[in-house]
Amino acid sequence: MEVTIINIGDELLIGQVVNTNASTMSNMLTTAGMEVRKTMVVGDVRQDIWDAIDEALHESDAVLVTGGLGPTKDDITKKLLCEYFGSELVESQEALDNVRRIFESRGYELTPVNREQALVPKCCEVLNNDLGTAPCMWFDHKDANNHRSVLVSLPGVPFEMEWLMRNRVIPKLHETFNTDIIITKNILVQGIGESFLSDLIEPWELSLPKNTKLAYLPVAGLTKLRLTIRTTHDNPNTPDIPKLLQGLYALAGLYIVGEDCETLDELVHKTLIGRGLTLATAESCTGGNIARLLTAQAGASAYFRGGIVAYSNEVKENTLGVRHSTLAAHGAVSEETVREMAEGVRQRLGTDLAIATTGIAGPDGGTPEKPVGTVWIAVANATHTEAKLLQFGANRRQQNIDRSTNQAFAMLIRLLCQKD
Amino acid sequence: MEVTIINIGDELLIGQVVNTNASTMSNMLTTAGMEVRKTMVVGDVRQDIWDAIDEALHESDAVLVTGGLGPTKDDITKKLLCEYFGSELVESQEALDNVRRIFESRGYELTPVNREQALVPKCCEVLNNDLGTAPCMWFDHKDANNHRSVLVSLPGVPFEMEWLMRNRVIPKLHETFNTDIIITKNILVQGIGESFLSDLIEPWELSLPKNTKLAYLPVAGLTKLRLTIRTTHDNPNTPDIPKLLQGLYALAGLYIVGEDCETLDELVHKTLIGRGLTLATAESCTGGNIARLLTAQAGASAYFRGGIVAYSNEVKENTLGVRHSTLAAHGAVSEETVREMAEGVRQRLGTDLAIATTGIAGPDGGTPEKPVGTVWIAVANATHTEAKLLQFGANRRQQNIDRSTNQAFAMLIRLLCQKD
Repeated sequence: MEVTIINIGDELLIGQVVNTNASTMSNMLTTAGMEVRKTMVVGDVRQDIWDAIDEALHESDAVLVTGGLGPTKDDITKKLLCEYFGSELVESQEALDNVRRIFESRGYELTPVNREQALVPKCCEVLNNDLGTAPCMWFDHKDANNHRSVLVSLPGVPFEMEWLMRNRVIPKLHETFNTDIIITKNILVQGIGESFLSDLIEPWELSLPKNTKLAYLPVAGLTKLRLTIRTTHDNPNTPDIPKLLQGLYALAGLYIVGEDCETLDELVHKTLIGRGLTLATAESCTGGNIARLLTAQAGASAYFRGGIVAYSNEVKENTLGVRHSTLAAHGAVSEETVREMAEGVRQRLGTDLAIATTGIAGPDGGTPEKPVGTVWIAVANATHTEAKLLQFGANRRQQNIDRSTNQAFAMLIRLLCQKD
Repeated sequence: MEVTIINIGDELLIGQVVNTNASTMSNMLTTAGMEVRKTMVVGDVRQDIWDAIDEALHESDAVLVTGGLGPTKDDITKKLLCEYFGSELVESQEALDNVRRIFESRGYELTPVNREQALVPKCCEVLNNDLGTAPCMWFDHKDANNHRSVLVSLPGVPFEMEWLMRNRVIPKLHETFNTDIIITKNILVQGIGESFLSDLIEPWELSLPKNTKLAYLPVAGLTKLRLTIRTTHDNPNTPDIPKLLQGLYALAGLYIVGEDCETLDELVHKTLIGRGLTLATAESCTGGNIARLLTAQAGASAYFRGGIVAYSNEVKENTLGVRHSTLAAHGAVSEETVREMAEGVRQRLGTDLAIATTGIAGPDGGTPEKPVGTVWIAVANATHTEAKLLQFGANRRQQNIDRSTNQAFAMLIRLLCQKD
């Protein structure tokens, strides 16, 4: 079953907004066992949207379209689809109830412009959008050559699109196309480069059953291994996954930090909740990134007490208790400082565990002795403080922040696995 | 002059990697006055690449292709282009010198596999890639209908692609096509929903000159208005932008927080550097998001001293100096608490300005009196503290965090515009 994705919007075409929708949708579809053949971006131009849709409907089983559903003048998708499918716009009671519910919950009056959000082509099925006022529309199509396909129009707002994909579109695609059953298993591997990992686990990879595919998904110093196991409804030949993984652990167990998570912040979150331990952070070069990733997850208050973003040396001294003499003798980016940061924040915030980071994220601020990409990370519990020097050797700021963050999470997980 | 972008790679199609190349290239081309009509992503599949190139060459004046130029088996772009243009692979002395130079500079031996990087179709012009071993190739094309077009093949490595675009491809496109001049102008609007804004400024929008387009780009409580003005070299009829904006300010000036920035964190960053003021943050419900957005920008240490992520009440009391009696009487999510947080962090970190947030980000933790989405934000300088209650009415955590963040930035900008 093949899918084409069309993302509509001038803001995408002029590069003002990075098109994360394409990758989010591709990822969700691939994980659900569907094959994305092509993704396209077109602007808010009638003929370009029409041509892209027309072409995609001939080539694919399903066409997913995002964007152009807002209440403003440059949003033309709905009218165009109405015309394309030879239908007329009618007010959908279901969509109107939804628009009204959302406006009421926000304490706003429903204006005529907003009421127009409830107009949909008569021939479509409305898939209710719990998170927004733009309706999601499902069209069944048969072209002149009797080729059957489906077109789904979704809002371009990322969180609405994602919710609709998960709760409405993918289940209905499964139902409509009777697709294979897909089982996925994530294994998080850290501390080894992708190509070295690939060499190390090659014998295991070659021994995998035919219906099992392995993908390497490297992000910011972490490699997510994703096993995708494809079985059919008629022959649900599900393998024994723990047994399948024994060979992987035998070869690369040293580098495996966790399973069944998408990210290391999710792994830390689940682990700390499960173990009933509390955490504090002291961040310099990561600037709050560690705290915000943990607190972005619902329930973080169960373990996260707080953090200090100690950007200036004064804050490191006054708020974390790093000694003036330490900073003077070794500098802010040093093992001594990062240890005092971790121990200081743990004591002051009264937590079981602490993370600290200090480094030169770049692109400026490096010296011959401590070039851009030099980062010290520490993790601490009541009895141990582990510190590690990293040399990322790149002057891209965000990359250095992301890698430092993942290193810190991995070090915390490893500290928790140690026997006291 | 119309451009199509084709990004090749399985990693893009399965959503493993976000396709930032498309937006980077689109942005560079648009800024250079060229019109991107479509962008496409296809996998490492011969027929799909062939079809995409064939279609694009018929539709566009220039087709820019990235990816598939590496030395591994799934990199098939070069051979395919050679076949498409009916040419043969020959060793380019220029490309070989470049490969050799790069290998020597890294201290590696040139292997036969790497030497193959210097093979290019005979019919192309090599644009030298100073940063990598994959050559950039320029093809002049005329199809059966005598339609002239250009195809440029670039490596997919983002920093190589970007360097080549800036230094080789865009200058040569300018030279080849006599392109239009494009002027863009961003206006950041906050505190009014997209549809209300649309109603409010409709008279102004309808009065815009024909060569001027307006787009609404809403993100997390902020609407970016983008004006795109197109003029030609022959008739550089550049409008007077300040005069053009007078009508907008007359209708919606109350909601305009800034111009010429992509985001509010960029606006805050530039404003604080420009004004020479320092900032500290005290974040509860935003969990470090405000700090990390500011510190993600190079040069933030000029104004950002540090922040406290005060997630627990103990941290609010001990680290920020919020009074126990305040928390007991009014709760953590209250005007009294948020004011003490802002004033506390400003005093303790010794800054000119402070931001504080406290709220219920959700999805849990709400009460009938303070439902999920209830957020208090405060901004403070030496003489004023402004506090504001927000009711987002949504139980989506990340959305509440992002909206709170943008509200806080907008309040800080407004505080800076007040007369003391």
